[in-house]
Amino acid sequence: MHLRVINPTVSTEREATTLALLTGAAASGTRVSAATLPAGVASIESRRDDALVTPWVLRAAREAEADRCDAILVDDMLDPGVHAAREVVDVPVLGSAEASMHLAATLGHRFAVITATRSTCDPVIEHARRFGVAPKLTSTRSLDIPTAEIGRDPEAALASMVRCARATVELDGAEVIVLGLTGVGGHAPAVTARLAQDGIDVPVIDPSVTALRMLESIVEMGLRSSRRTFARRPGATSSWPEPAGAGDARPMV
Amino acid sequence: MHLRVINPTVSTEREATTLALLTGAAASGTRVSAATLPAGVASIESRRDDALVTPWVLRAAREAEADRCDAILVDDMLDPGVHAAREVVDVPVLGSAEASMHLAATLGHRFAVITATRSTCDPVIEHARRFGVAPKLTSTRSLDIPTAEIGRDPEAALASMVRCARATVELDGAEVIVLGLTGVGGHAPAVTARLAQDGIDVPVIDPSVTALRMLESIVEMGLRSSRRTFARRPGATSSWPEPAGAGDARPMV
Amino acid sequence: MHLRVINPTVSTEREATTLALLTGAAASGTRVSAATLPAGVASIESRRDDALVTPWVLRAAREAEADRCDAILVDDMLDPGVHAAREVVDVPVLGSAEASMHLAATLGHRFAVITATRSTCDPVIEHARRFGVAPKLTSTRSLDIPTAEIGRDPEAALASMVRCARATVELDGAEVIVLGLTGVGGHAPAVTARLAQDGIDVPVIDPSVTALRMLESIVEMGLRSSRRTFARRPGATSSWPEPAGAGDARPMV
Amino acid sequence: MHLRVINPTVSTEREATTLALLTGAAASGTRVSAATLPAGVASIESRRDDALVTPWVLRAAREAEADRCDAILVDDMLDPGVHAAREVVDVPVLGSAEASMHLAATLGHRFAVITATRSTCDPVIEHARRFGVAPKLTSTRSLDIPTAEIGRDPEAALASMVRCARATVELDGAEVIVLGLTGVGGHAPAVTARLAQDGIDVPVIDPSVTALRMLESIVEMGLRSSRRTFARRPGATSSWPEPAGAGDARPMV
Amino acid sequence: MHLRVINPTVSTEREATTLALLTGAAASGTRVSAATLPAGVASIESRRDDALVTPWVLRAAREAEADRCDAILVDDMLDPGVHAAREVVDVPVLGSAEASMHLAATLGHRFAVITATRSTCDPVIEHARRFGVAPKLTSTRSLDIPTAEIGRDPEAALASMVRCARATVELDGAEVIVLGLTGVGGHAPAVTARLAQDGIDVPVIDPSVTALRMLESIVEMGLRSSRRTFARRPGATSSWPEPAGAGDARPMV
Amino acid sequence: MHLRVINPTVSTEREATTLALLTGAAASGTRVSAATLPAGVASIESRRDDALVTPWVLRAAREAEADRCDAILVDDMLDPGVHAAREVVDVPVLGSAEASMHLAATLGHRFAVITATRSTCDPVIEHARRFGVAPKLTSTRSLDIPTAEIGRDPEAALASMVRCARATVELDGAEVIVLGLTGVGGHAPAVTARLAQDGIDVPVIDPSVTALRMLESIVEMGLRSSRRTFARRPGATSSWPEPAGAGDARPMV
Repeated sequence: MHLRVINPTVSTEREATTLALLTGAAASGTRVSAATLPAGVASIESRRDDALVTPWVLRAAREAEADRCDAILVDDMLDPGVHAAREVVDVPVLGSAEASMHLAATLGHRFAVITATRSTCDPVIEHARRFGVAPKLTSTRSLDIPTAEIGRDPEAALASMVRCARATVELDGAEVIVLGLTGVGGHAPAVTARLAQDGIDVPVIDPSVTALRMLESIVEMGLRSSRRTFARRPGATSSWPEPAGAGDARPMV
Repeated sequence: MHLRVINPTVSTEREATTLALLTGAAASGTRVSAATLPAGVASIESRRDDALVTPWVLRAAREAEADRCDAILVDDMLDPGVHAAREVVDVPVLGSAEASMHLAATLGHRFAVITATRSTCDPVIEHARRFGVAPKLTSTRSLDIPTAEIGRDPEAALASMVRCARATVELDGAEVIVLGLTGVGGHAPAVTARLAQDGIDVPVIDPSVTALRMLESIVEMGLRSSRRTFARRPGATSSWPEPAGAGDARPMV
Repeated sequence: MHLRVINPTVSTEREATTLALLTGAAASGTRVSAATLPAGVASIESRRDDALVTPWVLRAAREAEADRCDAILVDDMLDPGVHAAREVVDVPVLGSAEASMHLAATLGHRFAVITATRSTCDPVIEHARRFGVAPKLTSTRSLDIPTAEIGRDPEAALASMVRCARATVELDGAEVIVLGLTGVGGHAPAVTARLAQDGIDVPVIDPSVTALRMLESIVEMGLRSSRRTFARRPGATSSWPEPAGAGDARPMV
Repeated sequence: MHLRVINPTVSTEREATTLALLTGAAASGTRVSAATLPAGVASIESRRDDALVTPWVLRAAREAEADRCDAILVDDMLDPGVHAAREVVDVPVLGSAEASMHLAATLGHRFAVITATRSTCDPVIEHARRFGVAPKLTSTRSLDIPTAEIGRDPEAALASMVRCARATVELDGAEVIVLGLTGVGGHAPAVTARLAQDGIDVPVIDPSVTALRMLESIVEMGLRSSRRTFARRPGATSSWPEPAGAGDARPMV
Repeated sequence: MHLRVINPTVSTEREATTLALLTGAAASGTRVSAATLPAGVASIESRRDDALVTPWVLRAAREAEADRCDAILVDDMLDPGVHAAREVVDVPVLGSAEASMHLAATLGHRFAVITATRSTCDPVIEHARRFGVAPKLTSTRSLDIPTAEIGRDPEAALASMVRCARATVELDGAEVIVLGLTGVGGHAPAVTARLAQDGIDVPVIDPSVTALRMLESIVEMGLRSSRRTFARRPGATSSWPEPAGAGDARPMV
Repeated sequence: MHLRVINPTVSTEREATTLALLTGAAASGTRVSAATLPAGVASIESRRDDALVTPWVLRAAREAEADRCDAILVDDMLDPGVHAAREVVDVPVLGSAEASMHLAATLGHRFAVITATRSTCDPVIEHARRFGVAPKLTSTRSLDIPTAEIGRDPEAALASMVRCARATVELDGAEVIVLGLTGVGGHAPAVTARLAQDGIDVPVIDPSVTALRMLESIVEMGLRSSRRTFARRPGATSSWPEPAGAGDARPMV
């Protein structure tokens, strides 16, 4: 099985981190390849950012299909373009938010989502409502660290994650934690271990790995998203400016 | 007051129709100008379409602010980019869907939304949930006519609207109707009259005019969207391909 | 357009305040007249009060229609008799609560309502549920000042409003504020300014002015409440004691 | 125990029917007395009617307390004035709608309410939402017979009730039926028997009798409504016209 | 009327306490008998416990029917086996939780449930959702005292109940309290009195007595649960190990 | 990985079918073993049946843990004992209903569940509410064939599944189907193919296989249910009759 993970940003550094995480987590028969967007933003922290990357996610999904990928993972807690992409390709498309929140709902009655920046908390809540799991989402908390800085001081970032996770358990009553730090993932085992040292025994979910495994299952069961929900419109056109050259770029908004 | 209506498509024909409708409906002190997108799609009938127009709606909103407009109306029943645009400009931004569904909720207990094509029914339901008025949305029905054809045979289109409106009242129990045919608007009075001839006395709401009036009120009361909900991120950057030339275009997805 | 504001109390002082506020806020083509009830209570702070004024609101609505008014505004955050009045007159009837809560829902995701007395908080929550906007109502807080005293020491009242508004933002997470002090209205701009001095930038809504503008829009669009929701019962009778004389009054309950 | 049933209309005929029904159903230690309103309407079929009787229900509740009654039953499926009356008296006050819908919710998962006239269906739905039992209310159906005519041809009325009850079971999936024909009550056993003849085995609830028994239980357990929900306002005044004489009456609205 | 209360545990001490409470509270025409389970657990404080007692509750219900009882009360705040028992017997079956939460919902807008141990709080919340009264359940709090110890130091237990009740009122905003200490019931009047001494005037409900009275009413009205909701399956079989002897027992899980 | 599937019935025939299905679907590194209950019922079609098997599911879970299994799958659309079993063992426990409904919610907006007998539809709806996915559950339909007969005439059963699936799509608007025929599973591919022949392109989910794959993922990610939600009570005892001998059995209820 060939699974394409779309890094929905222009950050090649993020692609490397994500590809390493998912390659390590994939089943033996799964080949993981990655794509980074040619345009958009460096990290997704607002509705504006979501809007600016989504067209490029759709194009990347089309390219994944042209490359004969069997499934597409859009790796971000805001799930940019996931539902729209299901309209334009035939293979399964899944986002880290939708996969991880549904898993969290099966492991306990109250889950929390931890994000990097506070501005993404509200969109996470809106997603939970759309996915139908809002009654089980107890709280969202953020590290208040820009994603870019998490990689620079990993020990400080880990300490911050643990503090934040404890707060969701002790102040908000969370029983399961989604460590929604997509792009700087892979910390779930370390956070779990630290919490256990403090006597806090809760599952800590890595959204990217969860989405990877859920997609593997979907492909192996021969399933995909419903065309009745996500209809393809044959013959739908669009018009987009011809780019001047590969290296040219300007700010959009 | 200078109000900019953004036609969130590339159709200049649609701009003309909308501008005529809103100019006729505006208060005496309101100047209405219009903007059409330089890229995107010709009509918005899917999540893909919504995704492809949204970055250009944001740019058009920025341009409206640069033109010192006092308010921005995004005229489409899918409200593309409305909430994201509130992040990037300071003036009030309102969409036809949000304005009209809230008005409908104040005129009766059960309202229906009529759209041109069936593929937009589901996104309308999702919007109603986000706006908080879903318990009052009784049904959505569509003419099953592409927007483009509505203008070609107005009498047939009107008959279709009336049939569809009757169905929402008689089969679905609707008590108020939102005539969500943005882009080919202005038919609400005629539909109301036809229904009255058949003994059906229900309010029929034009979403574009409703959003215009609601924006006028918001501006005159000195209000705008909350920065606590729609935060501006200072220094947020983006990268976008430099276009080759004004006239060049290609399909995006 | 002739708009009748019904002051749903027996307080003529309140009529003067409200009439001044709304006359100042009305569009140039709108004439505002006011009516005060001949019987009922001096201020509405409980379900009992609501019950005692409602029959007189209906009568005042009938009188407004007889006076050929184009619209009727019932100015109180408990919206006494608003929905019942829609059954007995043909012109649009709107209350300050319904208008302002729907506007608040469009300006942000979480709004708070500030009332004069604590006993009106619960009815406001019940109204929010009926209007369909309860998921967006974050909190209700009250000044704990009888309405009558607000006018006596305006500076102290203003300070109290600002304290209360800050609490809804900082403790409850409110992003939009409805200043539900109907009868002593007009303070929204001052509260907004004071909050801005403290670095709190949230919209503050005046419910009476909001209802006035929404009614103007409804009239100009040729709309009114749905007769399918608010049916008139032809031939419905009622019996009421003939009053002894104009000046005689006694307590009812 | 002395229980006062308030017939919230001006119909003395209805008082006689209700008093007979409840006297027959009361426990051996319960004395039932009845009160009919001096003003209001003859039957409650709209929000207007509810508004016109409510002040008189409050006064009747005060009189019941002055008569040292132990509990007050307001017997109508619209529960007019029930919650307001709890503010003005200390003894328990209960309405037929609230009591019967809660009982219905304990006997099955989906209940229907049958009313006399269609205009009362919507208020019943609103009540179900306020009581918190709306998820279990499957449908409302009405006989479409004015209450006054039900007594004139009992056999035709019974046949109509059975038809209506069957429709709620067979078309709407109801599993429990509230026979909401307050004022012409007592038919639940006959409807149950007729349905059983047709092989339909569902509980049929008489709302007035249910409220009577629930009030008896509340009194015997020494309970009453919470003063934290229904606060008494000491010193609250009201002003009401002195009536000219006992026999004089005029229409109110 | 012969009412059988099933003590859904193996504790004969609990049977005595409950039987005394309910015999004292029953109407003069009601005979109360009790049954204790031959197997299961000594107190119900988890889903495991609920699972282990439920088959024996069903058998006890069958035995009650064989004994020609008119109604069956399962006396525990987790209502173990109540809905399943309705399938296997024809007489009404009611649990203390369902009865008391519905009564609480009619006495105020926000009720709290107090339990003995914290592990039962979550199941109580799940029950409230199933009964349809979750919007009115404000909080659950527990004494954090094993049920067995409550009887040993009644004064300390009462003080703990009062502290817990105050917390639900003062911290959680509860307006009505369900004293969910089934098995050690009868303290509601004392808690009410202590709260009144502290100036807190809220109804305190005893769930067992409430269920008793509600069942008496149901029987006297000739009602029972709906067979459409709780269908009997004729001919349904089951297989269960033949017990070795009356006195032998071992742990199950 | 060693996964134990608990067949929550006494039917050894069902064990064979399920074991074959899951052995075929498991990943190469997964060993699947099965357990059948020593007591209970032959198929689970009511709340009574659920109650009678649940204690034995708990015991089987304990035995699976004693056998050093890594995960436990309870294979039935009523998920009997799943949440209780999480309290008594440390390894992950998952039921077919919870796993499949969450997957269905990610593949489309409206899913239907098909069951063998009508009596299980209501419990499925209750489960959907508890899992938090009820807003996405569009309908439940049953074949109205006892599970035992499905295996006897596979072609007739398949035709019945296809008819039922079409009805959920065409009459109820389902976009995804959960083929909830646990115990006679493995038909999802055939149903998908038949629907595709009729031009109906919707995902058809096999609940048992879905639960298997989800459990494999949970184990590989090192997760398990939250002990904060499903607490183990150390020292909890229970008493159960010593069985007379291995072969003796009698009906329980």
